[in-house]
Amino acid sequence: MPFVFDFDHAHARPPMELKDLLGGKGANLAEMTSVLGLPVPPGFTISTEACRAAMSGGWPDGLSAEVDRARARLERTMGKRIGAASDPLLVSVRSGAKFSMPGMMDTVLNLGLNDESVLGLARQTADERFAFDSYRRFVAMYARIVLGIPGDEFDSLLEAAKELARTTSDAGIPTELLRYLVDAYKQIVERHTGAPFPQDPGDQLRGAIEAVFASWSGPRAIAYRVRERISHDLGTAVNVQAMVFGNRDDASGTGVGFTRDPATGAKGAYGDFLVNAQGEDVVAGIRNTEPLSALGTRFPGIYDELLEIFARLESHYRDMCDTEFTIEQGKLWMLQTRVGKRTGRAALRMAVEMTTDPAIRLTKAEAVARVTGDHLDQVLHPQFSTTGHTVLTTGLGASPGAAVGRVYLTADDAQAAAERGEKVVLVRSETSPEDVHGMLAAEGILTARGGLVSHAAVVARGWGKPAVVGAEAVRVGKGSFSVGGIVVREGEWISLDGTTGTVVLGQVEVSRGKTPKEFDTILQWADAIRRGHLGVRANADNGPDAANARRLGAEGIGLCRTEHMFLGEDRLPVVRRMILAATPDDEADALEELRRVQKADFEEILEAMDGLPVTVRLLDPPLHEFLPDTQELAIKEATVGLTPEEHRLFEAAKDWHELNPMLGTRGVRLGVIKPGLYAMQVRALMEAALARVAAGGRPMVEIMIPLTISREELALARSWVEGAVAATLDAAASKAGKGGKGRKGRPAADRGRLQVTIGTMIETPRAALRAAEIAEFADFFSFGTNDLTQMTFGFSRDDVEGRMMAAYLEAGLLPRNPFEVVDADGVGELVRMGVERGRATRPDLKVGVCGEHGGDPESIATFAAAGLDYVSCSPFRIPIARLAAAQAVLGAEPVPSAEPVPPTGKAAGKAAGKRAAATTAAAKRTPAKRAAAKRAPAKRAASR
Amino acid sequence: MPFVFDFDHAHARPPMELKDLLGGKGANLAEMTSVLGLPVPPGFTISTEACRAAMSGGWPDGLSAEVDRARARLERTMGKRIGAASDPLLVSVRSGAKFSMPGMMDTVLNLGLNDESVLGLARQTADERFAFDSYRRFVAMYARIVLGIPGDEFDSLLEAAKELARTTSDAGIPTELLRYLVDAYKQIVERHTGAPFPQDPGDQLRGAIEAVFASWSGPRAIAYRVRERISHDLGTAVNVQAMVFGNRDDASGTGVGFTRDPATGAKGAYGDFLVNAQGEDVVAGIRNTEPLSALGTRFPGIYDELLEIFARLESHYRDMCDTEFTIEQGKLWMLQTRVGKRTGRAALRMAVEMTTDPAIRLTKAEAVARVTGDHLDQVLHPQFSTTGHTVLTTGLGASPGAAVGRVYLTADDAQAAAERGEKVVLVRSETSPEDVHGMLAAEGILTARGGLVSHAAVVARGWGKPAVVGAEAVRVGKGSFSVGGIVVREGEWISLDGTTGTVVLGQVEVSRGKTPKEFDTILQWADAIRRGHLGVRANADNGPDAANARRLGAEGIGLCRTEHMFLGEDRLPVVRRMILAATPDDEADALEELRRVQKADFEEILEAMDGLPVTVRLLDPPLHEFLPDTQELAIKEATVGLTPEEHRLFEAAKDWHELNPMLGTRGVRLGVIKPGLYAMQVRALMEAALARVAAGGRPMVEIMIPLTISREELALARSWVEGAVAATLDAAASKAGKGGKGRKGRPAADRGRLQVTIGTMIETPRAALRAAEIAEFADFFSFGTNDLTQMTFGFSRDDVEGRMMAAYLEAGLLPRNPFEVVDADGVGELVRMGVERGRATRPDLKVGVCGEHGGDPESIATFAAAGLDYVSCSPFRIPIARLAAAQAVLGAEPVPSAEPVPPTGKAAGKAAGKRAAATTAAAKRTPAKRAAAKRAPAKRAASR
Repeated sequence: MPFVFDFDHAHARPPMELKDLLGGKGANLAEMTSVLGLPVPPGFTISTEACRAAMSGGWPDGLSAEVDRARARLERTMGKRIGAASDPLLVSVRSGAKFSMPGMMDTVLNLGLNDESVLGLARQTADERFAFDSYRRFVAMYARIVLGIPGDEFDSLLEAAKELARTTSDAGIPTELLRYLVDAYKQIVERHTGAPFPQDPGDQLRGAIEAVFASWSGPRAIAYRVRERISHDLGTAVNVQAMVFGNRDDASGTGVGFTRDPATGAKGAYGDFLVNAQGEDVVAGIRNTEPLSALGTRFPGIYDELLEIFARLESHYRDMCDTEFTIEQGKLWMLQTRVGKRTGRAALRMAVEMTTDPAIRLTKAEAVARVTGDHLDQVLHPQFSTTGHTVLTTGLGASPGAAVGRVYLTADDAQAAAERGEKVVLVRSETSPEDVHGMLAAEGILTARGGLVSHAAVVARGWGKPAVVGAEAVRVGKGSFSVGGIVVREGEWISLDGTTGTVVLGQVEVSRGKTPKEFDTILQWADAIRRGHLGVRANADNGPDAANARRLGAEGIGLCRTEHMFLGEDRLPVVRRMILAATPDDEADALEELRRVQKADFEEILEAMDGLPVTVRLLDPPLHEFLPDTQELAIKEATVGLTPEEHRLFEAAKDWHELNPMLGTRGVRLGVIKPGLYAMQVRALMEAALARVAAGGRPMVEIMIPLTISREELALARSWVEGAVAATLDAAASKAGKGGKGRKGRPAADRGRLQVTIGTMIETPRAALRAAEIAEFADFFSFGTNDLTQMTFGFSRDDVEGRMMAAYLEAGLLPRNPFEVVDADGVGELVRMGVERGRATRPDLKVGVCGEHGGDPESIATFAAAGLDYVSCSPFRIPIARLAAAQAVLGAEPVPSAEPVPPTGKAAGKAAGKRAAATTAAAKRTPAKRAAAKRAPAKRAASR
Repeated sequence: MPFVFDFDHAHARPPMELKDLLGGKGANLAEMTSVLGLPVPPGFTISTEACRAAMSGGWPDGLSAEVDRARARLERTMGKRIGAASDPLLVSVRSGAKFSMPGMMDTVLNLGLNDESVLGLARQTADERFAFDSYRRFVAMYARIVLGIPGDEFDSLLEAAKELARTTSDAGIPTELLRYLVDAYKQIVERHTGAPFPQDPGDQLRGAIEAVFASWSGPRAIAYRVRERISHDLGTAVNVQAMVFGNRDDASGTGVGFTRDPATGAKGAYGDFLVNAQGEDVVAGIRNTEPLSALGTRFPGIYDELLEIFARLESHYRDMCDTEFTIEQGKLWMLQTRVGKRTGRAALRMAVEMTTDPAIRLTKAEAVARVTGDHLDQVLHPQFSTTGHTVLTTGLGASPGAAVGRVYLTADDAQAAAERGEKVVLVRSETSPEDVHGMLAAEGILTARGGLVSHAAVVARGWGKPAVVGAEAVRVGKGSFSVGGIVVREGEWISLDGTTGTVVLGQVEVSRGKTPKEFDTILQWADAIRRGHLGVRANADNGPDAANARRLGAEGIGLCRTEHMFLGEDRLPVVRRMILAATPDDEADALEELRRVQKADFEEILEAMDGLPVTVRLLDPPLHEFLPDTQELAIKEATVGLTPEEHRLFEAAKDWHELNPMLGTRGVRLGVIKPGLYAMQVRALMEAALARVAAGGRPMVEIMIPLTISREELALARSWVEGAVAATLDAAASKAGKGGKGRKGRPAADRGRLQVTIGTMIETPRAALRAAEIAEFADFFSFGTNDLTQMTFGFSRDDVEGRMMAAYLEAGLLPRNPFEVVDADGVGELVRMGVERGRATRPDLKVGVCGEHGGDPESIATFAAAGLDYVSCSPFRIPIARLAAAQAVLGAEPVPSAEPVPPTGKAAGKAAGKRAAATTAAAKRTPAKRAAAKRAPAKRAASR
């Protein structure tokens, strides 16, 4: 396979499918040239394979010879020679990776100019000024990019020349000064490199190509790829193309054009245009551009030609295209095209409208595949409605949307201010379960520490509250916080954007558009595709969240965490009494009080999700989370002393203190130590369910045991749950007075209307390994992939998400943060193993996932391939999960946001085919599973 | 299959192989009756199967009928009827599980007595007193055991009767008072149960059988099984046997006899004997027994008969037997036999001597299988040489042996006292790496907190120092510690036994016998069996330990932890300087200083292990372990204030603080954050190796990267190591001046004499799952099963080993503490997976284990079955590991200490056959592996 391909190379497949090899730009240039026959300046592409070879082993053997031959072909085609003294050919050398990385990588224009060819250019164009201005620009650009010389020396000379010429614009510099500048620039180069500026065009070309290769590994490019989840292994292609000049005269110009409006999605050409200018001038924003439509009056023939090209591009790519074009002395040249980026609103509108556009005729499945989670996010969350604010600091965008409020630094103050009617932003070093009332009261949350799965981030996402976490420059003090030298006092206004992680001082205007009608259309189509394959549930812990989740399309609750029910102001003291209890009676009293309050919580949730399954996880966190911090109390003890009550709490906190709480007495282990706890929770839940039945509801209760490690443990926990379920039902029956005690006494009507199943989380590696045994006592599994990730990697998310994860991602040691995107190879294997082994024991086993990954599109694809029945995620992620689930069913790969959608049609069909292996297994399994479930509706319904 | 078997039942296999079914006692009674034809009182055994059925579903169908038929057969054989008014038959009802559980379960004697048969017994024996004394004992025993009535009411009536009769012995109570007592006892029963004492022998029998079944699940029995690692699922058999009476007259008696001396192993009958007494009297120790040899003068005929029986038993069981016998009016009856328990010294002597005993002729393999790790432990460690001390408190016996010393409560004080020449016991709440100098100075260590793999336990075992940990009653204060009301001040003497966990106030005399010659003989035989299959290496971190390990038979070092090299008094300040370094230069300076001191450490170790492989693990623990405790500094800051130096350390400690350090920035992650660290360690190691080569040594260096999670990470870490290795070798070469720089310049002689390989620990679940990829960059794997257990279960060993592990073991949720015995199902599957996947990539991959499990016999069997090349353990466990490795190769199951050895010969052969599946795989793999290694000695020797 050669390293170099001309734009008109006869590829065996359409070039636009060869982005892996040619990069995005090169593939589309070849498509326009060889398939569509559009007017594209000729050139050739050096493949990504050459870049990869150069990265691993230096400049590849044979590449020089191939470049020389391609250059000779290009010169023959153009009838000109690069670097020739008369009528010289100039070329551009541009990067072009598989995924667009705007502004991240290097470009060299006007390559081929030297001391001789500049004269040829002057003669040929009869424009000496143009020739020397081009040479000046080329020397500076080449020096900076290829030779690594700082640009400021060139800039200060340029400024001096303008001062000398008494002008403020580059165009005002006279030719003789430009000649002088070229000489001065070359001297700068010689001083830095110890050699004259390279005059040989072959040397210039090799230098430029090497510089583009090297820019792939530049720090900005690496950082961009980390953020956009693009693999560091891909490498970039390099496009060498004959230059055309939009800045020759007033019959020349340059512009960018979209085949539809990328902001609104409206049909019709859209773009910007500049007469007598080069491409950079449009982007740089120095001159005011004219709208594309102005072309119609200035160059009507060319405008018609462009509109025709736009129509051909849309019907060929079957999508909105983004183009760059140049007019050189009355001739139109297409310099680039690609499927265009778009806003969320535009993406939705285009996807829906293109299903009825006769030139495109998207299928509904294709329309669904065109929209990304980020698109939905944009239309769902409020955004800053103005731009250009001075940024105070930046952290991790942990929960999307914009929030504006007055700064408060403690949860109590935040709550008090909110009760006074103020809008509040809670600012903390980090949050803990003791801060939840303040978080609930706040419009948004800002923390100095913690990563995307820190307490603040998880809770904020769960509630759909904007949050910026890990803003490391923030120092929280008493009554104020500071960033560098700036101090922000309690009560001052700040604004934050939880999508981008930006924090702004003062009040920024926020807009929340209504979701467009296409939002619902696309999600309905998505639901039609995924139903029967992959369900979507919500993680929700209270009635309002549950109701909201249902409105957003949740088909039940996959995770109701009960720990929040222990943290209310009225409950924490009771929980502490339970922990401190000196006698079993004291403990039972406290549990009884908790049971009464929790019943109401459960009732609200079951009501909101009536007729849909609600998975309730019994208490999971270690008990010391409900006790005060030992260090604070230790300091207080050593200074002002402790009250007797504090002393007791201190002793208990020390007693329950753990060195590694994540691996300590949590989950079902709590149950083993304090069995009354789980029985209390189950009783509260069952009483709530019975109240719902009495009110005519149809509660579907799924009781879930956390952190299981073995069959024996689950069997024991199941026995407590079954005992408490039976006790509650019996008590209710005898209270109803219908025939006294015993199961037979329960009203028959209840039995049909109340469904109770008992299952477990699979969140330790051992549980996944021993799933066959564990399934003997589980009606369902729910993978807790947060914990499973922690234990499989040996990563405490609280500890590694800071400097360590950053170092790992930058070094390419991890392709993604495994707490954001599930690790398909390691954790994914345990999930697949757990599903297979569990279903081997119990073919009708219902299996879902309730970790944070349940709302991540790429992870959803992994789960779908593993044969899961449903995913569960934060209410605000539900629309995204519905879409991603449909895309997973379609076998479409989620695409990085930098390159919104892959071309569909034939190409997409093939790509989907390649991935069939994974998803066919899932699709095939589903009908069999459902049939099995019909044959034996083997729910071990505890209510039987 | 029936539930009930007569002692003379014609089993298809020798009954002594049927302990699973008949229990140990029942199997041996049947063997003596049906195979050896010895004089055994007739009876029958109710199988363990019946017990298991009763535990899960209540009294089994059909069992009553079977018991009735067996009882009828027994009555026909004896010519007497149970409960008959004339010449009644009495029976004993005894438990008998597969493994002996002495004193843990219930027995009922004299069953069959009632108001009528007591008169028959009186008539038949012409001894009314005897009859009523038997009846009184029976009622009290039955009431307590079967009916659950507290024994003290009976005891106080008995005391009253003695007072009335003005006697102090039971035998002094006259018959009429015994009659009165029987009546009073029956009234107690009626008051408690509301029903008369059961007169029907069938009811009595069923009650007794049910009570024995139930005693299997009694709390004492459960606790015993947890300690002795016996499965709760086995159940017990029940033996019903005709009573014989050694207390009839002076021609009667009872005794226990051993066929050899169980204390020394000396050949010849050995035991105790009492005239006119029942078995209980011998055990109770109320009357002084006579030595067995006295039987020769009192009952010469019976003595000869007994010696002949002993000889037959030894040649039949091919082992030392332990017997109980009774003489009733001049006739000898054998009541029980079993393979006898023995001391370590006796076990070794017997095993060796029996290979040349013509009646037994053990093979060497059988002899090796006869000895347990506990036996070796007993002869290796010093022991209290006297007994009966008042125990101050008891903790976990964490490191075996006895230690006596003065109490010191801080490491500094302990060290200072030791330097003054005092013998010291260090007492701490718990220990940390900062205490190691005090631990090193101490004779023994006592901690109040922590489990068997706590810091104190692991370090103490590593050094072979006696330690008792987790002695929860100990409260450590300032200048003293207390247990309950007893205060022990600094400088006072205590003694501790790290085998039993006992702590005694004052100085107890300690004996350390020399290891007997049979110790070396058995280990040489064991080595001959295991060599070429399973190697044994040591975990050792310094020269003396390495030398000691080599003396004890280690074939290299499997784990040299380098963290101890950072903790010396002269090093910790330098390590802190490295952590605090403000500039790269400061960091490099500190690293350079550490390199110099570490070189000497490595040199000592390599010298001690010259010619054998030494696996050096690069730094593993999180950096905050080298910083002071944040809470202490926080208190100091809040009270007396901090010095500037302390302030800097406090900031650093907060910066490096982690919520779950076990899952934090440790192992290779440290290397990613501070790459200079690993390069420094490798340079120090390589310089040491070169110094050894220069001194004529043959160092074999294996550099090990800890905590790997992926191929990419190991590839990067390997590149650092290879870089540092090459740099050191190049520097040495150019210093040597032989042709300047570059690899070619190195003296050729060095290359052959210095072997360097690079590998990784497999201690995260992900590493095991991704072993195929990871093996691409590893010359060897070493399983770190401590961490692998932590992550697979989600157990922090520091946090769960206290109340949680105790609760889990007692509830039967875990069969063993998985930090003591590797979890063969879960962690074991990951080990097997890691070995298979790693070898699929690299067939010659060397694989070992270096967790604490490497010294546990049962775990060694699991590792052998997984195909590991070697295990590595603390130097003091080396002999045990050598033995266990040989036993694993033989396919012998390690036996619980309660039942020292299974019968060998035919039985052992068959048992070994059953287990062949597991071990054959290992055995088969080994030769292939070695052949592969020969074909391609593909060590990626970094020294090449």
